[in-house]
Amino acid sequence: MWRSRHVISGNVNRSHVTRLFFQHGGREAASCHITKPNMLNVHLVPHTHDDVGWLKTVDQYYYGDRNDIQHAGVQYILDSVVDQLLKNPDRRFIYVETAFFYRWWKQQSSSMQQTVKRLVNEGRLEFVNGGWCMSDEATTHYSAVIDQMTLGLRFLNDTFGACGRPRVAWHIDPFGHAREHASMFAQMGYDGFFFGRLDYQDRDHRMIEKEQELLWRASDSLTPPMADLFTGILPNGYNPPEGFCWDQLCHDPPIRDDPDLEDYNVDDVVNRFLVIANSQAMVYKTNHIIMTMGSDFQYENANLWYKNLDKLIHYVNAQQANGSKVNVLYSTPSCYLQELHRANLTWSLKRDDFFPYADDAHDFWTGYFTSRPALFPLVGLDTDFHTFREEAMAVAQHHDAVSGTEKQHVANDYARRLANGWQHCQLLISNSFAALSGSFLKRNYCDNLNISVCLPTEILNKFLVIVYNPLARPVTWPVRLPVNGTAYAVSDVKGKPVDCQVSFAINELVFQVQAPPLGYTTYSVSLIQDGPPPASTHYVHVYVLQFLRVTFDPDTGLLSSLSNLETKQSIKLTQNFYWYNASDGNNTESNQPSGAYIFRPNSSTPFIISKTAKTETIQTSVVQEVRQWFAPWVSQVVRLYADSKALELEWTVGPLPIDDNLGKEVITRLDTSIKTDRFFYTDSNGREVLQRKKDFRPTWNLKQSEPIAGNYYPINSRAFIKDDVDQLTVVTDRSQGGGSIQNGSLEIMLHRRLLYDDVRGVGEPLNETSDIFPEGLIVRGRLLLSLEHPAAAADLHRPMAEQEVLQPLLARKFRLPKRAETQPFSGLQAALPPAVHLLTLTQWDKDSVLLRLEHQFQSRESKLNSQPVTVNLQKLFSTLVVLGVSELNLSANQWKDKMTRFDWTPQKGTGPLQTGCRILLE
Amino acid sequence: MWRSRHVISGNVNRSHVTRLFFQHGGREAASCHITKPNMLNVHLVPHTHDDVGWLKTVDQYYYGDRNDIQHAGVQYILDSVVDQLLKNPDRRFIYVETAFFYRWWKQQSSSMQQTVKRLVNEGRLEFVNGGWCMSDEATTHYSAVIDQMTLGLRFLNDTFGACGRPRVAWHIDPFGHAREHASMFAQMGYDGFFFGRLDYQDRDHRMIEKEQELLWRASDSLTPPMADLFTGILPNGYNPPEGFCWDQLCHDPPIRDDPDLEDYNVDDVVNRFLVIANSQAMVYKTNHIIMTMGSDFQYENANLWYKNLDKLIHYVNAQQANGSKVNVLYSTPSCYLQELHRANLTWSLKRDDFFPYADDAHDFWTGYFTSRPALFPLVGLDTDFHTFREEAMAVAQHHDAVSGTEKQHVANDYARRLANGWQHCQLLISNSFAALSGSFLKRNYCDNLNISVCLPTEILNKFLVIVYNPLARPVTWPVRLPVNGTAYAVSDVKGKPVDCQVSFAINELVFQVQAPPLGYTTYSVSLIQDGPPPASTHYVHVYVLQFLRVTFDPDTGLLSSLSNLETKQSIKLTQNFYWYNASDGNNTESNQPSGAYIFRPNSSTPFIISKTAKTETIQTSVVQEVRQWFAPWVSQVVRLYADSKALELEWTVGPLPIDDNLGKEVITRLDTSIKTDRFFYTDSNGREVLQRKKDFRPTWNLKQSEPIAGNYYPINSRAFIKDDVDQLTVVTDRSQGGGSIQNGSLEIMLHRRLLYDDVRGVGEPLNETSDIFPEGLIVRGRLLLSLEHPAAAADLHRPMAEQEVLQPLLARKFRLPKRAETQPFSGLQAALPPAVHLLTLTQWDKDSVLLRLEHQFQSRESKLNSQPVTVNLQKLFSTLVVLGVSELNLSANQWKDKMTRFDWTPQKGTGPLQTGCRILLE
Repeated sequence: MWRSRHVISGNVNRSHVTRLFFQHGGREAASCHITKPNMLNVHLVPHTHDDVGWLKTVDQYYYGDRNDIQHAGVQYILDSVVDQLLKNPDRRFIYVETAFFYRWWKQQSSSMQQTVKRLVNEGRLEFVNGGWCMSDEATTHYSAVIDQMTLGLRFLNDTFGACGRPRVAWHIDPFGHAREHASMFAQMGYDGFFFGRLDYQDRDHRMIEKEQELLWRASDSLTPPMADLFTGILPNGYNPPEGFCWDQLCHDPPIRDDPDLEDYNVDDVVNRFLVIANSQAMVYKTNHIIMTMGSDFQYENANLWYKNLDKLIHYVNAQQANGSKVNVLYSTPSCYLQELHRANLTWSLKRDDFFPYADDAHDFWTGYFTSRPALFPLVGLDTDFHTFREEAMAVAQHHDAVSGTEKQHVANDYARRLANGWQHCQLLISNSFAALSGSFLKRNYCDNLNISVCLPTEILNKFLVIVYNPLARPVTWPVRLPVNGTAYAVSDVKGKPVDCQVSFAINELVFQVQAPPLGYTTYSVSLIQDGPPPASTHYVHVYVLQFLRVTFDPDTGLLSSLSNLETKQSIKLTQNFYWYNASDGNNTESNQPSGAYIFRPNSSTPFIISKTAKTETIQTSVVQEVRQWFAPWVSQVVRLYADSKALELEWTVGPLPIDDNLGKEVITRLDTSIKTDRFFYTDSNGREVLQRKKDFRPTWNLKQSEPIAGNYYPINSRAFIKDDVDQLTVVTDRSQGGGSIQNGSLEIMLHRRLLYDDVRGVGEPLNETSDIFPEGLIVRGRLLLSLEHPAAAADLHRPMAEQEVLQPLLARKFRLPKRAETQPFSGLQAALPPAVHLLTLTQWDKDSVLLRLEHQFQSRESKLNSQPVTVNLQKLFSTLVVLGVSELNLSANQWKDKMTRFDWTPQKGTGPLQTGCRILLE
Repeated sequence: MWRSRHVISGNVNRSHVTRLFFQHGGREAASCHITKPNMLNVHLVPHTHDDVGWLKTVDQYYYGDRNDIQHAGVQYILDSVVDQLLKNPDRRFIYVETAFFYRWWKQQSSSMQQTVKRLVNEGRLEFVNGGWCMSDEATTHYSAVIDQMTLGLRFLNDTFGACGRPRVAWHIDPFGHAREHASMFAQMGYDGFFFGRLDYQDRDHRMIEKEQELLWRASDSLTPPMADLFTGILPNGYNPPEGFCWDQLCHDPPIRDDPDLEDYNVDDVVNRFLVIANSQAMVYKTNHIIMTMGSDFQYENANLWYKNLDKLIHYVNAQQANGSKVNVLYSTPSCYLQELHRANLTWSLKRDDFFPYADDAHDFWTGYFTSRPALFPLVGLDTDFHTFREEAMAVAQHHDAVSGTEKQHVANDYARRLANGWQHCQLLISNSFAALSGSFLKRNYCDNLNISVCLPTEILNKFLVIVYNPLARPVTWPVRLPVNGTAYAVSDVKGKPVDCQVSFAINELVFQVQAPPLGYTTYSVSLIQDGPPPASTHYVHVYVLQFLRVTFDPDTGLLSSLSNLETKQSIKLTQNFYWYNASDGNNTESNQPSGAYIFRPNSSTPFIISKTAKTETIQTSVVQEVRQWFAPWVSQVVRLYADSKALELEWTVGPLPIDDNLGKEVITRLDTSIKTDRFFYTDSNGREVLQRKKDFRPTWNLKQSEPIAGNYYPINSRAFIKDDVDQLTVVTDRSQGGGSIQNGSLEIMLHRRLLYDDVRGVGEPLNETSDIFPEGLIVRGRLLLSLEHPAAAADLHRPMAEQEVLQPLLARKFRLPKRAETQPFSGLQAALPPAVHLLTLTQWDKDSVLLRLEHQFQSRESKLNSQPVTVNLQKLFSTLVVLGVSELNLSANQWKDKMTRFDWTPQKGTGPLQTGCRILLE
């Protein structure tokens, strides 16, 4: 895939763009405290971890509202930290979440802003990570992560210049770590990466081997060290060592150093600290160790922390006069990293990822891969109109947002924000259409199309459908509109009739539209005949269209085979729905229940929902559908469009029944004749694909304790199983968890409804209802199945997933248009080659746009498309004239040619990797 | 009593003493914000209420240790408040408890100390009350209160000069208010007094009448306005109005004034505030109202409060442009008081006190009058050696210390502190003895005499007993020492034999000692005959000595009558022990249980412990004793000393049995033939006596809802019942609760053991055990009964109570002394007249001492002793030469002639009162 992702800012005002970076200096921070080479140096890193929504909404967290739910007020944290930094120049602090910092910053006086700039310039306040939020790694799509990182980093750049640029990525809380995230961080110029959570067996192994600090080679495609990222595992998650938490939220004894008062405890504190420091040094490689002195929403009253840390440093270092070899200092992750770099050692190399995450034998954090499946399509929604209300999207990438591990009222808040953002997008799109078309007539969007509700198309006799296509290539797309008439006429902009059909069983008008690259076109729809539909459904067992053939078992109504007519491949394929009985924690092995985070089925054998499906068939020239009913709460449409190479399974699950007091985790399972031999494949954040193997981890000898949950991995855009001949690929429309438990089988978790909290802080069972769904959420989604030879599969699933993420946007218009505005429009002179994805095209400032072009094929996955590609930028756009181009890093906060990163040496050499693609300016 | 209490600082270095007060200025504070005469002015008073021990010990509170028990750290409060005051010169803060402030101050840098001085001088930080603690009012003795106030106020004076002198007394938390406290505050120069707790019926009445601000005439004896104290009742206890608590300990919504973020709430906050302010104005007299913006241990992160208060003031006052007539401002109690004074109104006059305190119909805070009776004697202990370790005594006067309403571990801490303080006192006394006697031999104190344990006197054959007398008149005192021998010889300093006797039943040597005023003398004790005691106890029914006759009922073993042989008075007197069954809260009327604070018997009829007592008699020439056993956990010694005018009842109660799961509140009840007609009398803080009447309150029409608890009052030193002929006075050795429920009856609560918390915060049942008493505390105390004509009773009970509080101190010495050191010593040339009590004589600085002389008789209570008295200071001391005298106020922080207080006009005139005594310098 983006073996090189090139970010280009075309601009006419070079000095303006240059301004963004004028303070770039040398590699090493001058503001780090001096360390002592012959001692153990303990880097104390004061920090706060401020979730951009979790138990409270982001704005409740900012203001400190609803402290009855959780005591947390970020405005006060920043107030207090700045105050306390000013009291002692030795003190340090790091801040992470720009979503909060931005809110605070805009409320400060200019003199306070100057003060903060001084603290930043002096390295006393350091930004780390610096995205809008600390994104989730298991359930996010790379495009949204890049956007949210860019949003945060740009604010820091605009506000503080180079001294505000984070040098360290800092994902201390996400529940497992994606390789693609590491790759992105490397390409964003970070010198290193720290996190807190990894599998407990992995940690134990790494402690013994002193491999808690390592080099992560995060891409199969990019030439090292392009995607190499130094990675450090923090010693206590992100908490302080036991007994040394001095925040107002903690209860550890403060340092009581007045000998006149009771309980003088300096000696005790110093001794305990020395024991902890020396123990920690045993499991790390250098004579430097880091301690995270902070935690969730701490430092609201920073005085408590700093007053005691000042004393700790004073009294511990005073012991050096008595021969102590421990030197403790205020520090930051980048100062610590600098010392590791200076140590000039070699580091073990890692090529896989950190999924799944378990913090104990029966505590696999694989439930959140699918938690809140109804929130996911909203979060994944990316229309490329992200310049406006992009904060809502950015906020939603937070590791307690998209992950579904927030409280219900917070999930509702995210949904509200995304809906608001979407309203703003619609306005923006309407204005764009209007500007291009000259018509300001009101446009209307059908937001509820996914539940087949669109009032205007159901009551009007004549309307226009405008199709916007955000991709850089033309698309063909089936449009399905709820209607009430019997027959309609559809025509394109040239008046040419378009084949269309009404499915009476479901009162849907279906027709295929074609839209130009990065552009739009218009179709007009007119009612021809009103009245009730004729009754005509019938049942067949074999469905054949241009590219695929599927068969159904006439006895069960289930899928029985899938064939590719082009390649003449065929596999046995049975698909059905099952549910795992969620553990209620009442178990001899462990009292861990299934919850928002944790997946823990009571038994490894799921219950089948129904052995047979009632079916109904709809056949039109446009589409063939088999509708399957498994239970009142599980149904599916198996759909073959005339010109599609994928079989669509549109599943509808819910409301999950809980009258039996059993929590349910519903999967669909595809059982095939493919010989998988324990292997299967999942993508990482929608980009590169990683190989998975049942009951196996690449870097340590796994003791498997949860045969299902311990074999689940995140699926963001696709998963596949294959043997030498056949590859069955499933492209998903949202992030989900899945696994391959049996040979030839692939299961995907679709929906979860649980009755117990899983004791990871959220304090609620994952048991969603809503105003529309008071009996429990109904979730609808789809899987796209394709069968190909392994060597050619990517040629299909890459563009298919691209289209799935950036679906055409439909708008309707009910007044009859003037001729002009019905003209189609494309922003490109020509389509981009199949390998190149137009990831970003957005106005950067008055005179420049930010363009991201991505090579979307992984190395070696396609003979044809994994090759380098050349794009001529001058000939790309239809309405923009390129006056100049400057290449930036992935996050657009550094010039590419100025980006220098620490070099790290892996312990052993790695084989040659393919070189990246080149984009040439001709 | 101290109709005038004169405080005199004799000194040779006038300039040195003057230094204490050189910053004295005018009456009105220049630092108060300007108010608006045509508007309702709302005085916001940011404050914290920092208990000097309650749920945590004083040092745990200071450091913020054990925040798991309660989140509170005073060091951080003061850090934070000073920081925040510096951020905005409009902000104000008041601080109250010098015990904490002193700890903090001595840890500050000199530059911080300068900063704080500036804040004090500018009136931005104001001290109110200013004692070492906020003393309890129901269970304290006036001498300890004066000492603790003096200690705190002196620190403020020494540190800040006049600007640090509190102008306002501030007892926002004590559970009811004593008239003697008001009198002391007036004499200490306070301009006014604010508190938060009073009976709910009283408050309702005062709200309707607009009498929540009043003039308290706090003495029957002192000429107005000497003991007049303007008193204000705060509107919300001491909390902020509902919805406006912005401390980190609260959950009220912060002001969210960023219109870009969700839940903008400025309009809502302003409207709610205006409604509250206007409602509050309806129940107060002027166009100024006060709001206490703070509570227990608040302002640890003062930013939360001030940031929101700044916004509140801004947005509320902004409404004035729209016609609002509400003006809100930062203020202090003294600024608010100044506005009330300027209003120049008349105020209702109050002459009684604010006991008992009930916050609901079944919630009388009359249990704490007796809670932790074993702690009381320690707290009452006052040897006048309070210059050293006086902090321990001062801390113990706190309203959660002496009141017994602290957690058990905190009570243990107070006991430890007092014991430490007592050790230091012993050292000081030993050194004083040594300096006077020239001998540095080790002295030995019998701390466990009250439980008859004193190892040295039990094993040695020869020793000295040194008797120190802190009173300004000679005392005769019975000494009882545990011994093992059969016969002893005792002689005074002149070698003259002293009558002595061994009580074999209890192995006690008893003899009378006589000690000179403010001095000591020595007795030598020698064993004459060793061996087992002869068996010889017998029983008689009538005991007669010089002054009293008591009879016992031969059938029951109980007291049956008491006669005064001098006056030929005689009354029927039965005394027995009973217990109330403490409510467990399981009750239809209310779920309030009895607890540390609340007394709520399940029934108004107490259970009798035994109708009869087993008795045993011991008669010697020195003392006659009847020992009574009522139960394994209740016994008593009825004791008549040869030359005593009082009958001593030494009761021993405990461990209270709780195997029946019933909480017990044990009383002793004296039933007499006196016709009391619902009246009885109790002292206030050991000084003036107030009349009480059953089911009656002087200032409102009481609806009595608790027939026992609602008739309980604090007894600090004495209570009496009387009719025209007979007055039975009981002098106590500790503070206790008591009442007169039946005609002729007086009951005193002795000990309490409860099984439920009473839900007032302490979170523990009052169920004490200890290492020595694992089965439950055993408490021993004594009551001194006297029978006199009412007009002469005070002539006996005043000196009796004086001796009870300031008992002689005994030390023992085991090596044979040289002749010189056995000489008796008196610090006075002659005894003071009976009416004058030497309240204080302490080194003030190098060249001066602080002397307090008190007229200890209330006006009109004694024909002889209520008269003015003259004392010649020049001829008073035997070792001090008086070079000069300056008169100070009661708390010794102002020159008497410089003390000017606000004048307040009562609503109606008051009758003439007797003038005070004069002390002349001849």
